[in-house]
Amino acid sequence: MPHLRFDETVSGWVIFSPSRSRRPHSRSFADPVADTTEHNHCPFCPGNEKLTPPEIYAERPNGRGWQVRVIPNKFPALRIEEDRQRVVDGFGNQWMGGCGAHEVLIESPEHSVFLPYQPIDQIERVLRTAQSRYNDLMRDQRFQTVIVFKNHGVSAGTSLAHPHWQLIATPVVPRLLRLKHFEAAEYFDRTGRCLYCVIAKRELDAQERMVTANKEFVAFCPYAAHVPFETWILPRKHQSSFGQAEPDKLAALASLLKDVLLRLTAGLDNPDYNLTIDTAPRGDEEKSYFLWHLRILPRLSEPAGFEMGSGMSINTVLPEESAKFLREVDLPA
Amino acid sequence: MPHLRFDETVSGWVIFSPSRSRRPHSRSFADPVADTTEHNHCPFCPGNEKLTPPEIYAERPNGRGWQVRVIPNKFPALRIEEDRQRVVDGFGNQWMGGCGAHEVLIESPEHSVFLPYQPIDQIERVLRTAQSRYNDLMRDQRFQTVIVFKNHGVSAGTSLAHPHWQLIATPVVPRLLRLKHFEAAEYFDRTGRCLYCVIAKRELDAQERMVTANKEFVAFCPYAAHVPFETWILPRKHQSSFGQAEPDKLAALASLLKDVLLRLTAGLDNPDYNLTIDTAPRGDEEKSYFLWHLRILPRLSEPAGFEMGSGMSINTVLPEESAKFLREVDLPA
Repeated sequence: MPHLRFDETVSGWVIFSPSRSRRPHSRSFADPVADTTEHNHCPFCPGNEKLTPPEIYAERPNGRGWQVRVIPNKFPALRIEEDRQRVVDGFGNQWMGGCGAHEVLIESPEHSVFLPYQPIDQIERVLRTAQSRYNDLMRDQRFQTVIVFKNHGVSAGTSLAHPHWQLIATPVVPRLLRLKHFEAAEYFDRTGRCLYCVIAKRELDAQERMVTANKEFVAFCPYAAHVPFETWILPRKHQSSFGQAEPDKLAALASLLKDVLLRLTAGLDNPDYNLTIDTAPRGDEEKSYFLWHLRILPRLSEPAGFEMGSGMSINTVLPEESAKFLREVDLPA
Repeated sequence: MPHLRFDETVSGWVIFSPSRSRRPHSRSFADPVADTTEHNHCPFCPGNEKLTPPEIYAERPNGRGWQVRVIPNKFPALRIEEDRQRVVDGFGNQWMGGCGAHEVLIESPEHSVFLPYQPIDQIERVLRTAQSRYNDLMRDQRFQTVIVFKNHGVSAGTSLAHPHWQLIATPVVPRLLRLKHFEAAEYFDRTGRCLYCVIAKRELDAQERMVTANKEFVAFCPYAAHVPFETWILPRKHQSSFGQAEPDKLAALASLLKDVLLRLTAGLDNPDYNLTIDTAPRGDEEKSYFLWHLRILPRLSEPAGFEMGSGMSINTVLPEESAKFLREVDLPA
């Protein structure tokens, strides 16, 4: 059964999800990989809907087939049925029930079209669906955050090639989000300003790390990027939660996201990457100190012993170089 | 030039080391990989010493060739020649000079013998050399920590196959170590006890996560392991710094490390892994709240978007299962 255990040494929870692994031998301990490049065996392709758990949501505009489809993850990290009782065992170790949710958002019926090659209105549909699922999951008062993310490519953790996003609702605020909120709150207490709004303004002023921008969003490689080509997309106007973004804002984001991912995909020969949406946890949606944003983290190099031991990244490419390279990519017409 | 930049959003430093990458195109942004499986081109093999920067240290017992050899890393993340001045630019971004050190410890003259297949006295020599380099580097008052680590296998970040360790001295206390020390200090303030000593005792009492032990050390899969088969090795007696370990303690560690790595290597078909030594930073070596220890982190699954977004791990194998599996491995006679 999924559950969480508390790691006292770093003051954070770890999710245990034994159903996600297979029998105990060698690589079979890894996440289940079932990459079916053949269309007719892909559970995310139209016609194979019976291979997935029951549909949670879909958009079927104009009576056509579905254009996006949301289903429960077949190997959920956390489950709605679990409780969230905290238990301390006889040795002082603390665990809690694996209460949460784990959904898959299938980006489009097309098996082999990567997100940036979709039309803008399809990308907008994906973002709108992600937001709608985010808001629906957050209606469950047991969930403290919903992590919205996308893995592109095997080294980024994709187990199924058909393009998709995932949402995981967690019963606690995860360690990194807590840290980011703590630092942003501390900055706000000290300066009266939102750290992320300040950063967006800095990057617009400095220009050298800018990748692209439009009326609603800016995209840049952050000053202290942890990996080569790390790119952030920030709203220009303060807004704490992704759940609050207005429809025209999501349309603007779709357009900018397409632009950024096209540059990355065309310029770097389709690199693997992770994409996450960082947003305020429950109860902080109305606070002035956190700005929701996207982080795109290409997987061109992997953390090794130094990073594991120190928690400190070594980045071999300056964000000024990364940004210049991405700015200068010749985009397909 | 290597330098560090401060990431205000997580309150931690990132190392920028542009010399470690090559020209800006595609995979060439990744760490330099020069895996020369052929003995005659390997810069770490005897006879090829001229291919490395000048030797820092070596042991040549009984007038034979070297048995361990320490050299500067040819692509250093940080360098002794850099200063550590902190500078705030006109936009409020903070950076500092890339002052530090980056050394490579070649484990043995043998290109193709993995650490657990070395005799115990050779493993002891490796640990003694690592400790001696640790203590020597810490004599430089500019360095706050020395991260001692080993990458085994390509997915763990190895760029040269010949078995080796690395040491990186940093001019600041890295984020994860600061967090671990903070949590341990807080635990000590609250309970008057060392958190790690308490954990070692808990595991000895509970038994179900124990892998192996000897007079001086215990090896177990921690209660809230972040990855499958994560294994910690802790001294039985309190000691804050790896630099303080007595010679007979290092001998006992060599024997236990061989045991643990044999189980891992034989049981899981030679998995890639990272190994790190966590130890008290400068100034905390005499404090009672931190116990130096080894962490072995097999790379059987990779962090993906959820982990990047949340900082929270999803582990698919319970540490009780991992430990049982490792305990039951049939060791070669």
